[in-house]
Amino acid sequence: MKVAILGAGAMGSALTIPYSEKNEVVLWGTEYDVPILEKIRRGEKHPRIDERVAVNDILNPDELDKALNADILVIAVSTEGVMPIFEQISDSLKDQVIITLAKGFIDEGEILTIPQAIWHERKDLKRNIAAITGPSIAKEVAKKLPTHVVYSSLGDRTLKVVKEYLETDYYRISLTHDIVGCETASALKNVYSIAIAWIRGIESRKGNVTMNNLKGIIVTQALREIGTLVRANGGKTETVYDLTGIGDLIATFRGGRNGMLGELLGKGYDIDSALKELERRGVGVVEGYVNAERAYRLAETLDHKGKLKMEELPLLEGINDVLYNGKDAEEVIHDLF
Amino acid sequence: MKVAILGAGAMGSALTIPYSEKNEVVLWGTEYDVPILEKIRRGEKHPRIDERVAVNDILNPDELDKALNADILVIAVSTEGVMPIFEQISDSLKDQVIITLAKGFIDEGEILTIPQAIWHERKDLKRNIAAITGPSIAKEVAKKLPTHVVYSSLGDRTLKVVKEYLETDYYRISLTHDIVGCETASALKNVYSIAIAWIRGIESRKGNVTMNNLKGIIVTQALREIGTLVRANGGKTETVYDLTGIGDLIATFRGGRNGMLGELLGKGYDIDSALKELERRGVGVVEGYVNAERAYRLAETLDHKGKLKMEELPLLEGINDVLYNGKDAEEVIHDLF
Repeated sequence: MKVAILGAGAMGSALTIPYSEKNEVVLWGTEYDVPILEKIRRGEKHPRIDERVAVNDILNPDELDKALNADILVIAVSTEGVMPIFEQISDSLKDQVIITLAKGFIDEGEILTIPQAIWHERKDLKRNIAAITGPSIAKEVAKKLPTHVVYSSLGDRTLKVVKEYLETDYYRISLTHDIVGCETASALKNVYSIAIAWIRGIESRKGNVTMNNLKGIIVTQALREIGTLVRANGGKTETVYDLTGIGDLIATFRGGRNGMLGELLGKGYDIDSALKELERRGVGVVEGYVNAERAYRLAETLDHKGKLKMEELPLLEGINDVLYNGKDAEEVIHDLF
Repeated sequence: MKVAILGAGAMGSALTIPYSEKNEVVLWGTEYDVPILEKIRRGEKHPRIDERVAVNDILNPDELDKALNADILVIAVSTEGVMPIFEQISDSLKDQVIITLAKGFIDEGEILTIPQAIWHERKDLKRNIAAITGPSIAKEVAKKLPTHVVYSSLGDRTLKVVKEYLETDYYRISLTHDIVGCETASALKNVYSIAIAWIRGIESRKGNVTMNNLKGIIVTQALREIGTLVRANGGKTETVYDLTGIGDLIATFRGGRNGMLGELLGKGYDIDSALKELERRGVGVVEGYVNAERAYRLAETLDHKGKLKMEELPLLEGINDVLYNGKDAEEVIHDLF
């Protein structure tokens, strides 16, 4: 098969490695990716995955059309970039498999998962879209370390294709139809990761005590609330308690940008100084921050529709209070507890 | 109420602190506890919790009878010690609440949880027994850091008593009737923690790569199998996906004796050299090791009864192979994956 990966960030670039085992792979970069494309062309390692990508061709920002004759198109940009890219390619799409991997919500007046936002534009593509969720840190995928992810799609042919052509012995793929549940859970994972990381900050604020009991409480509560939101949004409980929910949480909850933001908030930074500090450190977009407000609005909508009650989501309420209402993280934890 | 804690180890001693908020507490020590009892009498901190215990009286090994006039008796010895202590007190028991906190299985020909083993001896006490599960590292309980545990019992009066007299604002208590599920899950958590810790060992064997994706996979699989075993043993799925299962796993999976044993096995030690190394480091009984063989036998029994199939438990099979059949942990992970 021909696979085109749209976006040369960490995950898109890492996927060239398993995908090239059975397929011809091209990597297209956005304007932001130009310095990376140049490195790749010079045969250097990709700086964010510390490995060389495995591609048959590299395409510049102005060569997007050349990517579109692929059988499988992977939209590998961050949540904010997905719909702008999709608008550009939408008219040329026929029956390709389209894979999305950003973990966030899209605001189209109502709060949608990424596949829902695409269906909104092109209902006829409903069965062509697959989403990747589960524990997959890009660097580890690139190093061929054991990884097992979930590809979800409403289309049986789509699931068959991704399993047959994209699975390798180090990059294992499970399949499910619960694409809305997978995408809801993985977007929420980023949001709740912020609160889980508060505890690290609180520990250091208190002079490096360890508060593992509290970590157990907060992770359990996060998973309860993710379960509530996933079910209310039409997804399945088992998605939360498998690779997509727990698996991803375990793989990522000690690191990442959401974790850095959460830790600063736990230390007592207010949101503005925390974001400034991350900027100073050169940390880019914090997906969990952008998505927390959307998660909260999704919850409110689901409450209005009678699908859940906001009182079932005290931790989400607390996250919203810390990120948008100037409340202190330790105080939120105290009230919650 | 009068509370008697039988066993002056880390957890029993830590519990004196929340328990003494509303009750009169006495702490009885076994022969193994004599040096600790002496320290406590001299007003020193308990070495394993780094805090002073909060007690009205300290009882020596030969003063067990003095403890038995309590309203609440806490059997706070390790799994192996529970039944010997119970035999000693059984004849004097009337209508006390009896609390057990060891996390293991008991071998009475068939493999039983601790409450089941006690019921086996004294059916009339079925509703008097409560078990403590969930994330509770003793040191953190002793330091009054936020802790939320689960007390399970078949007896409503028992649940009412523990909630009313033992809960404090830093030591929160949830209640459930699923005592068999709680005890099965928490005993299994120790067993599966060994396998989760293999990965740390494998990471260092491979030159300190990080394998967080693999951690996500193994924790997810561990919880799946714990769920299968809990259901087959008569417990509830939600017990696994709440404080007792996930919460405890999150609080403890990076530390503890099970983790130390698992890490050595992951590094490539065989079981004999790993146990010798732990002995050299002065590490006591590894509950997960003792219980792994019992967990495996429980699984086989449940298979024979048609309640589950051994094929559903590949990780337990792998743990058994590493601990008892000389197989290498990395090879097991490879086969599993």
